Amino acid sequence: MAGLADDALMDDGVVLRALPGIPDIHPGDDLAEVLIESLRRRDMTLHDGDILAVAHKVISKAEGRVVALADITPSAEAHDLAERVNKDPRKVQAILGESTRVVRAMKRPDQDEGTLIAEHRLGFICANAAVDESNVGAADTVILLPVDPDASARRLCERLEAAFGVRLGIVVTDTFGRPWRMGLVNVAIGLARVPARIDMVGERDAFGRVLSVTMPALADELAAASGLVMGKSDKTPVVLFRGIDWQSEESSANELIRPKQEDLFR
Amino acid sequence: MAGLADDALMDDGVVLRALPGIPDIHPGDDLAEVLIESLRRRDMTLHDGDILAVAHKVISKAEGRVVALADITPSAEAHDLAERVNKDPRKVQAILGESTRVVRAMKRPDQDEGTLIAEHRLGFICANAAVDESNVGAADTVILLPVDPDASARRLCERLEAAFGVRLGIVVTDTFGRPWRMGLVNVAIGLARVPARIDMVGERDAFGRVLSVTMPALADELAAASGLVMGKSDKTPVVLFRGIDWQSEESSANELIRPKQEDLFR
Repeated sequence: MAGLADDALMDDGVVLRALPGIPDIHPGDDLAEVLIESLRRRDMTLHDGDILAVAHKVISKAEGRVVALADITPSAEAHDLAERVNKDPRKVQAILGESTRVVRAMKRPDQDEGTLIAEHRLGFICANAAVDESNVGAADTVILLPVDPDASARRLCERLEAAFGVRLGIVVTDTFGRPWRMGLVNVAIGLARVPARIDMVGERDAFGRVLSVTMPALADELAAASGLVMGKSDKTPVVLFRGIDWQSEESSANELIRPKQEDLFR
Repeated sequence: MAGLADDALMDDGVVLRALPGIPDIHPGDDLAEVLIESLRRRDMTLHDGDILAVAHKVISKAEGRVVALADITPSAEAHDLAERVNKDPRKVQAILGESTRVVRAMKRPDQDEGTLIAEHRLGFICANAAVDESNVGAADTVILLPVDPDASARRLCERLEAAFGVRLGIVVTDTFGRPWRMGLVNVAIGLARVPARIDMVGERDAFGRVLSVTMPALADELAAASGLVMGKSDKTPVVLFRGIDWQSEESSANELIRPKQEDLFR
């Protein structure tokens, strides 16, 4: 960021940066302590109003949400689905275990392995119920979302707040594909203090017209932005945002899930 | 951004900031000249590798893509759809004029006015074919997407590059709703030089495992991030990103559209 401080243009704004030097996380690790130590080792501090985007994988790993495929016994349904989309039946069983419903099962001819679009028990609709193989650090294991990502976010937030004596926000992220659009973006799957959405209904636009439906998904904006510096192939699972204009509230990533009765694409 | 420069944590990273002092844009305005003057008036410059996210509305307005409802004659189809979703038939006609197909037409009992999910002639699937009323600055008009947002982005990029003697990237944004998730996020609808997606297939994750499907939608990450500082009710339609790690290429927002044959939710 050479040349930033000398430029009047950048006097205010938002800065985001991946926290460096976070070691690989293992089941049972105290993630809050790891982050606090990583920051302190570099004489870094957190400021009031900072928001951290945290890739769920480090939380899931610390919480032991890693399953060895060898320990999974696929059901008949898992075997059936596995055949349809050419997946390991044990992976399909892990997906079914995390899902309330399979929304679509698909394998295109050009694909080696297909996809199950599933409704996760937490309500998110996403590929393979967010069950993931990459970055697990061990062969033949899968990693699941935290049991309660909001609760994980709150615990982490409170520990970091106590350590640095400031008020913070946490967004737990995962990387989702999207209908209609190519490429992956990070979305929010767990929140502490950070509003899911900003309700601008009733406010006025730049021309005095009352806004009726403008509700930016702040938590998803933060999650997507974190992808700009959260390299998948780097060990940078935590991104710090400084300078965001936000107000703390009791929030939940559940507020980002479109209710079934409003959803035209389930 | 007080307190940033004195903190070792922020020595590198990404900075984003809304460009201040951009006046209201009118049909026929030279947007590039307006931006150049706005920057120069504040002794600001652009740096090599800077990316600008530009809300399409200022481009659409400069290009005269504003239509008075009084000038629109609704077709029979528009009248029919308008009745189903309780919309002004002239607005529906404007939507149909921008669309190749209506994907869903819906009005919930709790809504005053419903929504047409449409496939825009540019390929994007979005509410009301991106035809918008807010921030137009005049009553009873609608604003349409630019005719060719990639071309608009390229023209603007070249003008700014020539003025400041640097290489830049442009992401033209609009604000879209999403299936499954609540709240709005900005997405990329036009690109100059900025890759739509980063192809990480074949790269290795932090544990040496070869990544098979990881393709971050860089342009959409930038668009979504721009929403963090692009207030809908403020006149801040242009957001500067500095510090992004990217490589210039010939790109198009069309690369962000999921091909019909891969799309399970049309």
